[in-house]
Order: sequence, then structure tokens, then C-alpha cells
Amino acid sequence: MGGVPHPAGDMMHIYGDSISGNCLKVKWVADLRGLPYRWIETSVLAGDTRTPDYLAMNPAGQVPLVRFDDGRTLAQSNAIMLAFAEGSNLIPEDGYLRAKMYEWLFWEQYSHEPYVAVARFHVHYLGKTVAELDPKIIERGNGALKLLDDSVAGRDFLVGDRLTLADIALVAYSRVADEGGFALGDYPALQRWIARVEQAANIEA
Amino acid sequence: MGGVPHPAGDMMHIYGDSISGNCLKVKWVADLRGLPYRWIETSVLAGDTRTPDYLAMNPAGQVPLVRFDDGRTLAQSNAIMLAFAEGSNLIPEDGYLRAKMYEWLFWEQYSHEPYVAVARFHVHYLGKTVAELDPKIIERGNGALKLLDDSVAGRDFLVGDRLTLADIALVAYSRVADEGGFALGDYPALQRWIARVEQAANIEA
Repeated sequence: MGGVPHPAGDMMHIYGDSISGNCLKVKWVADLRGLPYRWIETSVLAGDTRTPDYLAMNPAGQVPLVRFDDGRTLAQSNAIMLAFAEGSNLIPEDGYLRAKMYEWLFWEQYSHEPYVAVARFHVHYLGKTVAELDPKIIERGNGALKLLDDSVAGRDFLVGDRLTLADIALVAYSRVADEGGFALGDYPALQRWIARVEQAANIEA
Repeated sequence: MGGVPHPAGDMMHIYGDSISGNCLKVKWVADLRGLPYRWIETSVLAGDTRTPDYLAMNPAGQVPLVRFDDGRTLAQSNAIMLAFAEGSNLIPEDGYLRAKMYEWLFWEQYSHEPYVAVARFHVHYLGKTVAELDPKIIERGNGALKLLDDSVAGRDFLVGDRLTLADIALVAYSRVADEGGFALGDYPALQRWIARVEQAANIEA
């Protein structure tokens, strides 16, 4: 069922893989904003993102992908969240706070996801052991979790004093880091922040 | 000289390493916008980003970093470009085009920089041979350059019909991809786009 384009004029479609935190981010923001959409389950492991139909929509061959009701498409989880959240208080109005939110979004994709999410994918979904992973993945993943733990110690949210896209982006894989062999118990402030963000963003724990 | 904080109230400081495309992006946008700043040369190879003073400003230990005149800091090259370009035509006004620009910015950090820039760093600055690199780096780097080449065939810029931050982000390492062992001659549309962006963004070829 995944990867098949639908005729223009239809409801917005989100092509996503339910095991992917990057895809869930987008779903959570759509739900928080009350946006109507059809979820098209698109399995990376089953090859749904490598079909000619799917690659015609997204040459990068990645999920999530949004196909708006006019047929135009948008990829990259954090770009989609930004589009969905435009004009809401998930994006700070203050210029500096908004810039700090962007900083976290780029840091997430460069310094957190490639380690915390990738370890989980290999261990939880491909059945590898932690010992089989490149040790750098675990080392850098722990570095990212430690930086987050330090950042949320003594504050409720990453930017300003309310939930923003920064929290939603970073919680997606932090909350399931255990599945990649990381010990969330080592990061108590991070654990409390995860519970706080799950509650504020209506994420089922 | 790198990595030493300066007293608040001073001019904006950009901590950057001149060999880093991520740092040059920020410089190019500051120059295009006519923003006054002091450039603090901060060498990654010399360890300037690992000093206690620098880590106090940026716990992620990365360049570039901006320290505004009020003492507040901002990291992540693409987040800094967004802050510098706010309100200019480097960011499209149209919501969909702006979202596409974000898509390219996130794609650059996730699917281009970790291969094209990392290969260059190992080959050009650490003196490794291409054969010593993980073959995935070259394969994925060529995949990214091919996707870009396809994307700019028949169009002047990546988003809409004028220069945006998407072009500036992607040109930074594409223009020096040869230094990482990639053959830019294999990507003629990309080469023409690089020359066009260098001219439009006042980048010295």
C-alpha cells in the first residue's frame, strides 16, 4: 500500500513508517494542530521507499513525505513540522528563541539522530547486538543524550518556557533510546523532560 | 586566539574555521546582508573548539558559533544563516517555497555534508587517500551530488527563481567536492549551478 501516489485534489497524505521517530514527529504535530490527513503506511524495511512511484515523489527515498491536497510534496521531518506549525505557539515569536529552536532542529539531525536513532534501528529492528555496532555510534549517542540531559536540568523545555518543535524533534528518538542499547536511567533530567514533553504534546507513553 | 570569549556589549563575533564550508556559509550571508562582525579564527584541527572556554559557549564543541553583541550565543550554521537572513529575500515569502528551502537545509546536513564534507576533511586536511575512506562515504556523497545535479538541471536555483539560503548551504561543500575525491566533471548541471550561485552570492571562485 505504501508509495503509491494519489490523485491531486484529495486530502493531504502523510507517507510515514510508524516505527520511525522522524515520521511520528510529523504525525504528532499534525494531530496537535488538528490538521486533517490520510496516513499512508510506508515501510522502509519492506522497500516501500525504493519503488519508482515513491522515488518520483521523493528522489531522496526517505520518509516522511507529505503530499499536500494540491499535489505538491515536502520532505524532511523537521521541514514538515515547521510547515505544519506555522503561526502556532510551537514556534516562538521572539527572533532569538526561534533561532535557538532552529539550532536544536539542526543539531538533532546532525548530532543526535545519526547515533541514537541509527543504533535503535540496527539493534531493535535489524536484530544486531550493541557489540556489533561501530563503537562511535554508541559513544556519540551517549554524548548527545548527555548534552540533552545537561540542557534540560533545571528547566521545563529546551527553548523558552513552553513546548516548541525543538522538544518534539528531540523527544522522538530520545524516548526510545533504550531500544538502541542506551541506558536512559543514566540521564534522570532527560527522563523527566521526556515525560513532560510526552504529556504536553499528547504523545502516548 | 580562537575560543576566547569577549566581553558583552562588543560587536557581534563569529567563531569560525576558514577551512570549513559550514563556517563560510555564515560569513557569506553576513557579508551579503552587510552585518558588522568580528571573525574569530577558531581551528578545529588545533583544538580551539575543545577548550573549556569554548565549550562553555558551545557545549556541542562545533563551529561556527555566533556571539551576539548582548552576549547571547547561537550555533549550527543553518540556524545562524536563518537568523542573519531574516526579513531578506534570501528566505522566500511564499510559505511553500520557504518550506522547500527548509527541506534543502535539513537534507544538506543529513545527506550531503556527512559525506561530501567529511570525505574532503579526511582527504584534503588529514591526508588520507580515497581508498582509505569507508566506501559508503564516497557512494553516498556521489548520490547526494547526483541528486543535486538532477535537481538543478533546467533551473537556475534550488527553490523558486532566485538565490535562497538553500543554494548557499548546498554550494559550500559542493564547490570543493573535488578535494574529497569526487569528480565534479561528472555533474555538469551542478557545475553550472555552482558558478551561478558563486556569482549571485559574491563568493570568490
